Amino acid sequence: MFKAVRLTDDDRLLILDQTLLPQTVAERELTDCQSLIEAIRSLRVRGAPAIGIAAAYGTYILAKTDADPARLLAQIEQIEQARPTAVNLSWALRRMRQVIESTDATALLPALRAEAVAIDREDAAISQAIAESGFSLLRDGMGVLTHCNAGALATSELGTALAPLYLALQRGLRFTVYCDETRPLLQGARLTAWEMQQAGADTVLLCDNMAASLMAAGRIDCIFVGADRIAANGDTANKIGTLGLAVLAQHFRIPFYVCAPSSTLDPQTADGSGIVIEQRAPEEVCELWYRQRMAPQQIAVYNPAFDVTPADLISAIITEQGILRPPFRFAAVR
Amino acid sequence: MFKAVRLTDDDRLLILDQTLLPQTVAERELTDCQSLIEAIRSLRVRGAPAIGIAAAYGTYILAKTDADPARLLAQIEQIEQARPTAVNLSWALRRMRQVIESTDATALLPALRAEAVAIDREDAAISQAIAESGFSLLRDGMGVLTHCNAGALATSELGTALAPLYLALQRGLRFTVYCDETRPLLQGARLTAWEMQQAGADTVLLCDNMAASLMAAGRIDCIFVGADRIAANGDTANKIGTLGLAVLAQHFRIPFYVCAPSSTLDPQTADGSGIVIEQRAPEEVCELWYRQRMAPQQIAVYNPAFDVTPADLISAIITEQGILRPPFRFAAVR
Repeated sequence: MFKAVRLTDDDRLLILDQTLLPQTVAERELTDCQSLIEAIRSLRVRGAPAIGIAAAYGTYILAKTDADPARLLAQIEQIEQARPTAVNLSWALRRMRQVIESTDATALLPALRAEAVAIDREDAAISQAIAESGFSLLRDGMGVLTHCNAGALATSELGTALAPLYLALQRGLRFTVYCDETRPLLQGARLTAWEMQQAGADTVLLCDNMAASLMAAGRIDCIFVGADRIAANGDTANKIGTLGLAVLAQHFRIPFYVCAPSSTLDPQTADGSGIVIEQRAPEEVCELWYRQRMAPQQIAVYNPAFDVTPADLISAIITEQGILRPPFRFAAVR
Repeated sequence: MFKAVRLTDDDRLLILDQTLLPQTVAERELTDCQSLIEAIRSLRVRGAPAIGIAAAYGTYILAKTDADPARLLAQIEQIEQARPTAVNLSWALRRMRQVIESTDATALLPALRAEAVAIDREDAAISQAIAESGFSLLRDGMGVLTHCNAGALATSELGTALAPLYLALQRGLRFTVYCDETRPLLQGARLTAWEMQQAGADTVLLCDNMAASLMAAGRIDCIFVGADRIAANGDTANKIGTLGLAVLAQHFRIPFYVCAPSSTLDPQTADGSGIVIEQRAPEEVCELWYRQRMAPQQIAVYNPAFDVTPADLISAIITEQGILRPPFRFAAVR
C-alpha cells in the first residue's frame, strides 16, 4: 500500500504528490524549508496528521543540513504558518522544538529522527484504534458517506474517517462508501474515491450538493468525517461542507461521526468561535482544474477552506481513546 | 439586454448558447427537429420556461418546412422526451398540439407562430408579476442566496428566482446576491454570476458546500430558487442541491422561497414521490470542463439532475398569481 509521507531507507523524505492524483501516482522529495512549506501550502501533502508527520521528518531533514538550534527553531516557526487551521502541525512541531531545546548538539540529529519516527508510528497506532472503535458502529450492508479525504492519504496509514472502512474490508463486512467530491479541491473525487477504489471498496462518487438527495432516498446510514481542529466543547473545524452535512444528518436522523487523533483536540480554544478559518484564493473556485475559466472575470468569491460544526450536531467523536459521546468537554491530553 | 430564446425579424429561431457562457456570448440557430432536441438535451437552452418557449417557436419553425399535422405531432412527441422533468416543456407543446389539432391547414402556420409568440409574451408578463411579489419580500441590505440559474437566461425576460433582484436593481434597493456554483454543470458560476454581474448587482460566487458556512455567519437573509415541477401538495423538483439548501434554511431559520410560473405546477402529480428524476451521465461529474479526468477510471457516479424539496421546507411559492403560503394544495390552473 502507498504511504502519504515516508522516510526512505537512505534517509530521504518523500511525499506522494497529492496534487497529481488520481491520474499520476508520483512521489516528490522534500529537501529544504522552502520545498516543505510549498508542499504543505499547495496541498501536495495534506490531511492534518500527514502534515504533522511531514513537518516532523522535515525538521530532521533540515537539521541534517544545518543543526544550529536557533536557525532550526526559526525555520519551525515559518513552517508552522503554512496552514494555520491544522492543529497537528503546531502539535508535531512543538514536539520537535522540545527535542531541540532539551538535547545536546552531539545527540540532536538522532534524537530528532527518533522523535519524527515516533510521531509517525504513534499516528499509525492511532488509526488502528480509531478503526476498531469506528468499526463497532458499522453494520453489514450500510451506506457510509464521507467528505473530503480523511484516509490513508491524510495520515501515516489507515486514515481517520476511512480507518473503520479499511477494517470492514479486511473483515468482510459489506458496505458502500459514498464520496462527496469536495469542491473546490476535489479531495473526495481525486483522493478518497481513488484510495477506496484501490482498496476494493464499493465506491460511489457524488457532487457535494447531491448528499441530501441520497439521504432522502434512505441510502446513507452513517457519516464519517475527519477533523482539523476540535475545540474544548467539541465544536469541530473540518473541510468546508462538513457543517452542511451535519445539519442534513440531524434533519434525516443519520448518525454523524467525527474521527480524529486526540492531537486534533485543542482544549485551549473554548469553542468554535475561536478557530481561525483559512480563506483561500478565488482561482481555486473559478479556474483550477478547468480548461478555461468557468466564472465571469473579476467576480467576488467566498472560499473558506473550513467550516465549524457545532458540537450539538455531532453524534460522537472517535479518537484513539474510544467513542466519545456528547456533551464534550476536552482537557489537555498531552 | 440579451434574450435566451428569440425569433428574429426575418423569422429565424436563435438561442443564446449557454454551454459557451461566460467566456463566449454567441447565438445558435435551430432549424430542425434534431438541432432542437440536441439544444435542449445538451443544455444549450435550459431553464424550464425557456425550454418551453424554444419548443414552441421550434414547432413553428418545423411547420415552415413541413406542415403535415401527423408528422408535426410525431416530432412534438420526440421533443417532449428531451428533458422529462421540465413540466413546461410538455405544457408548451400541449398548447402547440392543440393549435395543430384545431386549425385548418391554410391557417396553421400563422396560428402556430401566434401561439409561440403568446407563450413567450405570457412568460415575460409572468416574470414581471413574480418580480413584484418577490420584491415585496426584500429589504435594503439583504444577502440573498440562489442556486442554479432561474434568471433571464432561463425565461423570456427577467427570470423567476432572479426577477425580484432585477426589480431591486431598477428601484435602487441594495443587496448582495450569493450564487451557488451548482455542480456539475456550473449554471450558478457560468450563468447566474454572469447575468447578475452584467446587471450590476453586488455578486458573490461560492461552491455549493459553502452555503451552510455563509448561513452560520448570518450573511444570508433569504433564499430564492426556481422550480422545474411542483406537485399538487407543493413538493418541488428543482436543480440538484435545492433540497439541501431548504434543509439548511430551516435549520438556520432563513426564509426559503420557490419562484415559478404556474405552468410549473403539476396538479396531476399528488406529491414529490411521483416526480420522475432524470439521471445524467457520469462524465458530467468526472470530466466535463476539466483539463483531464478528475476521478478514478470506472468509478460509479451518482448524478441526478434534480431533487425534490418537500413542501414543509418551503416558506412560500411565488407565482404570477402572488405569494402562496403553506399548506399548498394546487388544482389545475389552465
